[in-house]
Amino acid sequence: MLMAELSRRSGVPVATIKYYLREGLLPPGTATAATRAEYGEPHLRRLRLIRALVEIGEVPIASIAQILATVDSESVSTHELLGAVQYALGPQQETPSDPDEVWQAAEREASDLISELGWTVEPGAPARTLLVGSLAVLRRGGMAPPGPPLREYARAVGQLAKREVASVASAACAAGDRLVLAESAVVGIVLYERMLIALRRLAQEDASARLNGTGQ
Amino acid sequence: MLMAELSRRSGVPVATIKYYLREGLLPPGTATAATRAEYGEPHLRRLRLIRALVEIGEVPIASIAQILATVDSESVSTHELLGAVQYALGPQQETPSDPDEVWQAAEREASDLISELGWTVEPGAPARTLLVGSLAVLRRGGMAPPGPPLREYARAVGQLAKREVASVASAACAAGDRLVLAESAVVGIVLYERMLIALRRLAQEDASARLNGTGQ
Repeated sequence: MLMAELSRRSGVPVATIKYYLREGLLPPGTATAATRAEYGEPHLRRLRLIRALVEIGEVPIASIAQILATVDSESVSTHELLGAVQYALGPQQETPSDPDEVWQAAEREASDLISELGWTVEPGAPARTLLVGSLAVLRRGGMAPPGPPLREYARAVGQLAKREVASVASAACAAGDRLVLAESAVVGIVLYERMLIALRRLAQEDASARLNGTGQ
Repeated sequence: MLMAELSRRSGVPVATIKYYLREGLLPPGTATAATRAEYGEPHLRRLRLIRALVEIGEVPIASIAQILATVDSESVSTHELLGAVQYALGPQQETPSDPDEVWQAAEREASDLISELGWTVEPGAPARTLLVGSLAVLRRGGMAPPGPPLREYARAVGQLAKREVASVASAACAAGDRLVLAESAVVGIVLYERMLIALRRLAQEDASARLNGTGQ
C-alpha cells in the first residue's frame, strides 16, 4: 500500500508517519519510484504498536525505540519482551540514592509480602519500587501499615494475572506476531489498570453512600 | 506556636506556608505583635491535609481551595466530603461533547456492570467516565470486552472498599476532625491505588516467569 493508504488504515496522519520514519521507529517502505514507496502489513502492525505505546501507555519516543528493538530481536524470550513493555510503563518511582531507615524498613516489608505470596520478581522491578515508595510514605505519615485486606487483594489479583498473562500469550501465539503480543500487553496493562482504579473508586462511593444511609 | 515552629513541625518551608496564607488556603494566625502571629494545632492539621493533596494527590492549588471549603462547611455530610476528595483526584477522563456510537455503547456496558454489581454511584462520577473511556478504547481497537475476570475483581474490590470506607470513617470519627478524615481519604485512595497497581504488575511478572519456565 502507499503512504496515503497506510495513514488511512492506521488512523495516523502522514506527517506523523514521516516523523516515525525519520526517527527510525518505522523501517522504510520498498521504493517503487523516486518519490513512491510501498508499505506492507508489518508496517501497519508496527504503527498500531507505536500508537498504543504513545497514546495509551504515554511512553516517551526514546523508550519506544528500545521496546521496538526488543520486539525485533527474536532471541529475546516472550517473558523478557513482556517485561520490557511493563517496565517502560509509568508510574515510576525513583529509588533514593541514599535510602534512609524508613525506606529500608519499607523495602523489607515489600520483600516479606512478595515472599509470603510466593512470587518470583526481579529485585529491580519498577513495580517493587513503586510498592516500597508507597509503603515508605505511609510510614513517614505515621499511618498504619496495610494489613490483611492488602494480602487478600494480592491473592485475588494473582489469580487474575495468571489468566491475563496466559490469554495475552496465547492470543499472540495464534497471531504469530511479537508486534501483536507487545500491543496486547500495553493495552492489557494500562487499560485494565484504569478500569481497576475506576471500579475501586466506584465501590468506595457505593460503600460510603451505604454507610451514610443514602444508598439503596 | 510561631511560624518557625509551624514550619518545623509540618515539614513545610516558611516561604510555602506564606504562599498558602496569601492564597487563603490557611487562615491567618492570631497576631501577638506587629510582625508576630501565633498558630495552633488546627493550622498544623490543615497544613498536613494541604501537603497530602499537593504531594500525594497531585491536586492543583485551585481545586484544593474548593476541597478545603467543603471540609470547613459543617453542613456537608461525610459522604459528600469523601466524594469531593475522591472526585478531585486524577486520572480524569473527559466526556466527549458529542459522544459517538462507540462511546454510547461503552456507556451502556459500564452502566450494566454497575447495576449488576448493585452499586449506587452518581451518573457524573469521574470514575464512571474513566471506566467508560477505557471500555471505549478497547472497542475502538476491536479488542475483546473484559469478561468474567473483571466482574470477579469488581466483587473482590467491593468487599475491600466496604472495610476501607468504614475504617477511614471510624478513625476520623475518633479524631473528631474533618481535616483528618479528608487527609486519610487522600492517602487511602492514592497510596493504596499505587500499591494495588504495583501488586498487579508483580503478579503479572510472576505469572509470566512461570509460563516461561523461569519461575521457581
